[in-house]
Amino acid sequence: MRAVEIILAKRNGRTLDQSEIAFMVQGYTRGEIPDYQIAAWLMAICWRGMLAEETAALTLEMVRSGAHLNLAQATGLPFVGDKHSTGGVGDKTTLVVAPAVAAAGLPIGKMSGRGLGFSGGTIDKLEAIPGFKVSLSQGEFIRSVREVGLVVVAQSPDLAPADGKLYALRDVTGTVESLPLIASSIMSKKIAAGASGCVLDVKYGRGAFMKDLTAARALATTMVEIGRQVGLPVRAVLSGMEQPLGYAVGNGLEVQEAIATLRGGGPDDLWQVSRELGRELLLLAGLAAEAGAAEAMLDEARHSGAALAKLRAMVANQGGDVGYIDDPSRFPAAPVQQPLIASMGGYLVAVDAEALGHASVSLGAGRLVKGAEIDHRVGFVLHKKVGDWVAAGDPLLTIHAANEQAAAAVSPALQAAYQFGPEPVTPPPLSNGVIS
Amino acid sequence: MRAVEIILAKRNGRTLDQSEIAFMVQGYTRGEIPDYQIAAWLMAICWRGMLAEETAALTLEMVRSGAHLNLAQATGLPFVGDKHSTGGVGDKTTLVVAPAVAAAGLPIGKMSGRGLGFSGGTIDKLEAIPGFKVSLSQGEFIRSVREVGLVVVAQSPDLAPADGKLYALRDVTGTVESLPLIASSIMSKKIAAGASGCVLDVKYGRGAFMKDLTAARALATTMVEIGRQVGLPVRAVLSGMEQPLGYAVGNGLEVQEAIATLRGGGPDDLWQVSRELGRELLLLAGLAAEAGAAEAMLDEARHSGAALAKLRAMVANQGGDVGYIDDPSRFPAAPVQQPLIASMGGYLVAVDAEALGHASVSLGAGRLVKGAEIDHRVGFVLHKKVGDWVAAGDPLLTIHAANEQAAAAVSPALQAAYQFGPEPVTPPPLSNGVIS
Repeated sequence: MRAVEIILAKRNGRTLDQSEIAFMVQGYTRGEIPDYQIAAWLMAICWRGMLAEETAALTLEMVRSGAHLNLAQATGLPFVGDKHSTGGVGDKTTLVVAPAVAAAGLPIGKMSGRGLGFSGGTIDKLEAIPGFKVSLSQGEFIRSVREVGLVVVAQSPDLAPADGKLYALRDVTGTVESLPLIASSIMSKKIAAGASGCVLDVKYGRGAFMKDLTAARALATTMVEIGRQVGLPVRAVLSGMEQPLGYAVGNGLEVQEAIATLRGGGPDDLWQVSRELGRELLLLAGLAAEAGAAEAMLDEARHSGAALAKLRAMVANQGGDVGYIDDPSRFPAAPVQQPLIASMGGYLVAVDAEALGHASVSLGAGRLVKGAEIDHRVGFVLHKKVGDWVAAGDPLLTIHAANEQAAAAVSPALQAAYQFGPEPVTPPPLSNGVIS
Repeated sequence: MRAVEIILAKRNGRTLDQSEIAFMVQGYTRGEIPDYQIAAWLMAICWRGMLAEETAALTLEMVRSGAHLNLAQATGLPFVGDKHSTGGVGDKTTLVVAPAVAAAGLPIGKMSGRGLGFSGGTIDKLEAIPGFKVSLSQGEFIRSVREVGLVVVAQSPDLAPADGKLYALRDVTGTVESLPLIASSIMSKKIAAGASGCVLDVKYGRGAFMKDLTAARALATTMVEIGRQVGLPVRAVLSGMEQPLGYAVGNGLEVQEAIATLRGGGPDDLWQVSRELGRELLLLAGLAAEAGAAEAMLDEARHSGAALAKLRAMVANQGGDVGYIDDPSRFPAAPVQQPLIASMGGYLVAVDAEALGHASVSLGAGRLVKGAEIDHRVGFVLHKKVGDWVAAGDPLLTIHAANEQAAAAVSPALQAAYQFGPEPVTPPPLSNGVIS
């Protein structure tokens, strides 16, 4: 078998078989096939696409490149759940769903990511809690699933190393955008992390990587199909990300909003989306027979305080200061808190979530260069959402910034992110169905 | 400017401007852009294609990567001609056209290639003449154009080095097949070699790299358009290569056939195609006002012996033993000469030139691995061409081989290359027009 022939086969639109995909992925991971041949192959995949069997084979070969956990086997538990979001602005659902589901009786063992581009990441958010450790040994991870029932750590580099190597190459060769490459990258990490089943939050809209519902549906369908092919039960919720989810954008602000939501308050959209994701996970695990029962379990976990207690237990287990969970006012406030004033009135037609995401990165809530420090205090708290009536002079959001210059610098982009109209507006749907 | 953005632009189907193409080609030549980014970019070009302006810009940037001759200026001659063939089986036209045109008064300074795949190369053929030097210094090359009026040497590595580097990468990344990449590769070398005008022999059919007339016409049109964009007058003849050109296939055998043709004998198809190419070159140079006059000049150069004398002068100038030109029977014969006998009769419908080309490589007339030695004695001499009546038992061709095993090994493939039918067959046209 020769790499150039496999490149040519894909270039010419032929379906690759498992042995050809294994040859490329394992050869690349071992350093036997050079970057330039893989780069040409990846571009040919962007061009020609991959069938479901090819995408599943690519996923499994990336899994085979590294360690492969089996959490149910390792913990002796019947079912360990996982959850993944394709990323969005103000997306703190993991901090709500995972404790609620765990409190409802389904242990969660999850590896999570950091912020990417305009989108935040759960690991960055959790680090807003002083002392919280995002790296655990494999043994600690398994013990935590078994004993605490909830653990969220940073992605281990031992899992699917081929994905890491391929992603780094895709990033510099213009081959990131590709349905089979995106789907297999996500799924290889989920499979390697070893949960029994996984719910995927596939976001669409301006504040998501998939800008429209059609693209998101295709990605969701591809990932669910990979799950089917490799025997991992997966359900995907299509959730809207035109405007930020909830009111808070920024790491510490989002953790506080998640705590408020677990206390029974918080924004309604955040709880609705979290409840939908949690419902699918409980159904997937067989802990509820139908949707209504699953939702009732989650509402009960929230109202009883069990969900918040589960978050607190996770923070305690991972070395975090639970005083911040008990009293969120202890999260340090940004030095500057300044309202963004509506210069005109009308019904709020759109809040460009991507623009807000980029502005939050500018404030220091995300990274412009790899490895940069994050300021966990900064971000925004929205006061108006799509459909609301706004009078000129109303505060649209509050900017939480390290200094006045930073706040001033993002203001024009924030103003431009808001669109008003004279007619009443129906808010966009929070979600658009489940793919399973 | 960043390489990844230029890759993405092409991937997304955007037209690249001159500065972007220059950035990629010069950056790659200087080693500043890595192989993997260029590999992805090349595959994106295969995918999306290039407009005429992009292809011309790519060509010129490859020219700019190295030395750029100007033969008219360097020699003080009004016009120096060049000729290029896209390659075929039994294609010894350079050895006929170039002496005939030079004898008709148009100096020729040509850089040529070696055999590639199933197709022979002029440099390999010329090396069948003992002593013939295919490498001259730039000064010797220019002096030879001026003083002899005919010189054919191997491609200098100083010309269009970016093309050499890009071609090597294309070869291992499945990106050879691409109209703009093929056309710019050929034209960059022609432009850098510095002739005043060039005639292109763009071959189509089984024994050519372009298998059909449509593809050949597209390549010819693209190359002529590059010439127009960069100010190099170019004409392209579309010539048929379903069956081998002439009767001889193999280096020494082809040189002998070319000499016979310049002596006034030889196969008619070889002279017809050579005369057509020569005619276009004389018209391009303005040495003849119309086709009939140009053809008469070439016929006169042949019948007067001036064309043969010009070949002899070139061989003498480049250190070759002119005794072989004067007495071609001195070319060493292959030890085994064995007829291939027709097992059935009928009108000859097809002689698969590619199959004969591959068989000649097996005999040692070409290279299976880079740098391999060539046996200049071996090859075939055809006795029948398409349209001929063949009786069972007639010799179809004579195999010239180093030994009997080699001859026996190629016989089945040769038999399979011949197709017979019951009805009279019209031979395929020798050429299909001129693109200018």
